[in-house]
Amino acid sequence: MKAAIFIEPKLIEVKQVAKPEIERSTDALIHIIRASVCGSDLWWYRGISKKSSGPVGHEAIGVIESVGSAVKNFKKGDFVIIPFTHGCGQCRICLAGFEANCPNVESDYHVGYQAEYLRAINADGALVKIPGKPSDYSEAQLASLTTLADVMPTGYHAAVSAEVKSGDTVVVFGDGAVGLCGVISAKLLGAKRIIAMSRHEDRAKLAREFGATEIIAERGDEAVEKVLAMTDGLGADAVLECVGTALSTETAFKVARAGAVIGRVGVPHDVDYQAIDRLFWRNIGLKGGIASVAKYDKAILLDKVLDGSIQPGRVFTATFELDQIQSAYQAMDERQAIKSLIKIENEL
Amino acid sequence: MKAAIFIEPKLIEVKQVAKPEIERSTDALIHIIRASVCGSDLWWYRGISKKSSGPVGHEAIGVIESVGSAVKNFKKGDFVIIPFTHGCGQCRICLAGFEANCPNVESDYHVGYQAEYLRAINADGALVKIPGKPSDYSEAQLASLTTLADVMPTGYHAAVSAEVKSGDTVVVFGDGAVGLCGVISAKLLGAKRIIAMSRHEDRAKLAREFGATEIIAERGDEAVEKVLAMTDGLGADAVLECVGTALSTETAFKVARAGAVIGRVGVPHDVDYQAIDRLFWRNIGLKGGIASVAKYDKAILLDKVLDGSIQPGRVFTATFELDQIQSAYQAMDERQAIKSLIKIENEL
Repeated sequence: MKAAIFIEPKLIEVKQVAKPEIERSTDALIHIIRASVCGSDLWWYRGISKKSSGPVGHEAIGVIESVGSAVKNFKKGDFVIIPFTHGCGQCRICLAGFEANCPNVESDYHVGYQAEYLRAINADGALVKIPGKPSDYSEAQLASLTTLADVMPTGYHAAVSAEVKSGDTVVVFGDGAVGLCGVISAKLLGAKRIIAMSRHEDRAKLAREFGATEIIAERGDEAVEKVLAMTDGLGADAVLECVGTALSTETAFKVARAGAVIGRVGVPHDVDYQAIDRLFWRNIGLKGGIASVAKYDKAILLDKVLDGSIQPGRVFTATFELDQIQSAYQAMDERQAIKSLIKIENEL
Repeated sequence: MKAAIFIEPKLIEVKQVAKPEIERSTDALIHIIRASVCGSDLWWYRGISKKSSGPVGHEAIGVIESVGSAVKNFKKGDFVIIPFTHGCGQCRICLAGFEANCPNVESDYHVGYQAEYLRAINADGALVKIPGKPSDYSEAQLASLTTLADVMPTGYHAAVSAEVKSGDTVVVFGDGAVGLCGVISAKLLGAKRIIAMSRHEDRAKLAREFGATEIIAERGDEAVEKVLAMTDGLGADAVLECVGTALSTETAFKVARAGAVIGRVGVPHDVDYQAIDRLFWRNIGLKGGIASVAKYDKAILLDKVLDGSIQPGRVFTATFELDQIQSAYQAMDERQAIKSLIKIENEL
């Protein structure tokens, strides 16, 4: 089968590799229909974080080709979301709602969703059933369903972690796909005002269409001044941190009002946490981490995509064939695309 | 009138000073009945944190002698809890439930509750009415009512911030009055197992009587091992950090299970926060700060003291007259008392 293989920074190739097989009784073998490139992949694509050569991708939807003998919830032919998380769904951590931290995950499991086939682990707990079959859906719907593997539930995790409530004024850091999904999520949870941090016209436009009521292009202390001016000098009721850089995180700390919670999903990079004593004196909370993808998809997000009330697939502003994988990464690296969709199987 | 005056580390004297007067229309002048010494006062009593000479004490109950012209909720003769917080009760921050961070507090207001009289500010928002008059209550009840000015709601804030839920396994750091009130609070919120960190027999005994199911005397990594052994290697569902030292905070980070929240009320001292990236990867939240005293007293704690279902006054293991103020501090400094109660007015 064909699979995207990371060779070295800025170089990804499509190669012929062995088709995966069921290895454990809890596995499912999935024929991938759509995959996508994640902003977090740019860290290693750019060579900022290290990664060995090998298969890549952790966001996809597909059709089950076969299941292991212990799989009860899925069968051949089921159309599914394949979350980037792999929770068993049965342990104390999964039952508490934090499947991304499930201790029952094969430690040497390597993702590789940008390929024709994938061996998915912990199928019963980790996969999410989509009604019908791929041909029942439009291209736009397939794109939105693909976001349910990662970025949409990740944005939602930021909003849930930030404890967004009806009527809140919310600030969203990050205008990539996750930040934009954070805007959708803040609106879903009832936010009245959504202030999106963005300095790119295409992203700011989409943020407004998703529900942002105000856009701030400034960064750092200038951004803090703007938010305080918009909120009677008190700060925002909830803050979504969807970037993870030191500047973004430290700015997030400063725009939160006393008693607010910062929900963070941006992977932290070189953050100076000394400002956290300040959070104590202002009763500001810090929550978040890796999203509970299957939980949020099943609870609300899949229904919202199916009934058309949210359209997170609009974050895909470019589409590529698997053979064009290098261009798909390059478009995001060079900010020509907000997010790249990969068509793996066109015969739906 | 008589008032306790801090002279220098380890030296507090009772002096004759001018009786305070109503200065603002929102003030109340209060005749103090009982006051108490807070563990946080030991920081300056010991000379670890700096403090100018002057009046001291921030926990008391008393009877209103007069009120300013704008005070609507209280009148002369009302028996009240005088929280150490002074929220106006009307601003956006107070309405959000974080009165300790109210922006409408006189910046130069100096507390001095260990005295015969006190000028209390923001009376309508900050004070809490106790039914009846002091002579309606036993000494034990007066002691419990006094804890409602600070330590009991502070312990409760730790438990609320840690999002303690019914059936949870909770770890409580700190076996001082606040930590012990944290044990009471975890039980109030439905915790099934409460693991208290204590290495002092008198405090461990009281923790058990308040609801602790297990006691751990070890500290640091040995304590972490014990908690993990008690929780299938996964950690506790909620953690109350009621100390604030680096060791305590860092240990708290390690005993929380993935997805737990650490509720902290210990004033942070020299904490190395680099471990906070680890919290991200484990979806562990950090919340807390200064307690919402009036809110919690009115919502639940006063009722629970009045109906006898909680007896936080048992943290007072020594009682002193105001003239013995130096001994009251000394008893806590030398750990002869868990907490010292000060009788100011005996003619109830």
